[in-house]
Amino acid sequence: MVAPLAVSMGDPAGIGPEIIAKAWSARRKAGLAPFFAVGDARAIARVWTGPVATIDAPDAAPRVFPKALPVLSIEDAGAITPGVPDSDGARCALHSLEVATGLTRNGAAGALVTGPVSKAQLYNIGFTHPGQTEFVAERFGVAGENAVMMLAGPSLRVVPITTHVPLDSVAGLLSVGLIVAKARATARGLQRNFGIPRPRLAFAGFNPHAGEQGAIGREEIDLLIPAIEQLRSEGIDATGPFAADTMFHARARATYDAALCCYHDQALIPIKTLHFDEGVNMTLGLPIVRTSPDHGTAFAIAGQDKAEPGAMIAAIRMAAEAATRRALKRA
Amino acid sequence: MVAPLAVSMGDPAGIGPEIIAKAWSARRKAGLAPFFAVGDARAIARVWTGPVATIDAPDAAPRVFPKALPVLSIEDAGAITPGVPDSDGARCALHSLEVATGLTRNGAAGALVTGPVSKAQLYNIGFTHPGQTEFVAERFGVAGENAVMMLAGPSLRVVPITTHVPLDSVAGLLSVGLIVAKARATARGLQRNFGIPRPRLAFAGFNPHAGEQGAIGREEIDLLIPAIEQLRSEGIDATGPFAADTMFHARARATYDAALCCYHDQALIPIKTLHFDEGVNMTLGLPIVRTSPDHGTAFAIAGQDKAEPGAMIAAIRMAAEAATRRALKRA
Repeated sequence: MVAPLAVSMGDPAGIGPEIIAKAWSARRKAGLAPFFAVGDARAIARVWTGPVATIDAPDAAPRVFPKALPVLSIEDAGAITPGVPDSDGARCALHSLEVATGLTRNGAAGALVTGPVSKAQLYNIGFTHPGQTEFVAERFGVAGENAVMMLAGPSLRVVPITTHVPLDSVAGLLSVGLIVAKARATARGLQRNFGIPRPRLAFAGFNPHAGEQGAIGREEIDLLIPAIEQLRSEGIDATGPFAADTMFHARARATYDAALCCYHDQALIPIKTLHFDEGVNMTLGLPIVRTSPDHGTAFAIAGQDKAEPGAMIAAIRMAAEAATRRALKRA
Repeated sequence: MVAPLAVSMGDPAGIGPEIIAKAWSARRKAGLAPFFAVGDARAIARVWTGPVATIDAPDAAPRVFPKALPVLSIEDAGAITPGVPDSDGARCALHSLEVATGLTRNGAAGALVTGPVSKAQLYNIGFTHPGQTEFVAERFGVAGENAVMMLAGPSLRVVPITTHVPLDSVAGLLSVGLIVAKARATARGLQRNFGIPRPRLAFAGFNPHAGEQGAIGREEIDLLIPAIEQLRSEGIDATGPFAADTMFHARARATYDAALCCYHDQALIPIKTLHFDEGVNMTLGLPIVRTSPDHGTAFAIAGQDKAEPGAMIAAIRMAAEAATRRALKRA
């Protein structure tokens, strides 16, 4: 039995509080292990009339979880207006993330699930990391190239090797070393978090038709093929590079455990086309399990009881399963 | 009533002959209008035991179509071995394409459907066009930027603004003029071929998150937004640029008639993820209707009765519907 999961609330003016409350409401039907929210309890009360139990420490969560949503409250969000973010809310979101990360790091929480934050609001208060993933990775002393963002849905897992950079700069950022590092962390993460003994990694080509043997670009020949050969020499089941457009239909998806993609949209288009409402962002390469629903704060619908909790439920379930698997392995 | 459709057989050693024969077998169930194959009748006989009627001219096709597959035979393919392409086969494929195009141009055929060819084999015999699309466009005197490759499936239509070029060269190839020209041809094509009075065109951003107001690249600000403004000033319903990864889930797809994408994989990944076995390639901007199944020669399975005719059936149906719509408009 793993410790209860810590779920940071994200921006208190976004849909984070609502989807966490809805996930708790669905706990029996969805078979969710005990979790507790970290954030301003008033943000929950603004958007939800269900039972809340404020707790002082994570170990109180499992006892109250069957009857009420446990909240480790951080009451510094100022006035909270759903849909209207402000700096106080951003500070509360960051504080929640720090506390939830710390509790997972010291083992009081079994895994970390992070609610959606506003990057623009965080930047306003001096946050210097590109996003929550990099913040968490740094807290664990993990270098950027070894922390991997994987997006996972019921029928597909994708890893973008580069993320939020101009598309025109991707070719210059790709290197054999970066590709190999991301792939190693992916293989290891699939073993630890999903119990796949020998993960099958399929690489997408950078160019149309994977470059057609150099006729339409050389990144496959110069970067991807050497990286794949290096990975194979280490015993990793790496294949490709494949034409990206024919990698994501159902028969193709059945042939690998994760698709490694060269750039953001190459990875995110297929996963969001297939699994828009149930995509989970999991960080691989950390000593703990961290997941997040793969969507934003959705300020436009916050506080209107319109938010779908599917991705949050999937993120909590995936985190609990991975944490249980890792705990059993250690035992 | 439009004239019968001309279906070029493509490479005689590929799956073209088989999927055309299978489409004919499914003509009643699929509700297909009369068509005739153009190519070496022996290629059909090699892979299919059903009834064939060789015809001398397209106007004989409708009469024989209910009982046999009409074939306008071009018997110059040499020895035909399914799965083993050669130069004789490539010459036959090119000859078939020329004849089918000519018959469509002079009105004897109601529309042109092209079977899959091997570009490598065609290049071997001196073919200098990138593909069949450019060959057909030139035969009609249409400049490349005004001929548009659209991929269409049951729930999505996409247009790649650039096609088979290295990804790293796309930013340099994009221009306001090119984007506007492709969009105009797309809007006009959706009106003429699909009867959509005011087509809704949605543009995908070039960079992740459509550049986030310039924070992750400037192609949106410098190219896409000016092009969209130009199109709007002409009365075309153009929107975007949108984050490409959130454009292709079901709710998003319902908001536009075609997605204009900056590069090959941005367009081809979503359409092939969703509609791998039923994708149709339609050329817009021509004075005639031209479609093609969105797959290749599949030499590896040719002659084994394994080829799925779904995309060919969809290509024939879409061509017939578009030709009928255009004929009614003229009448």
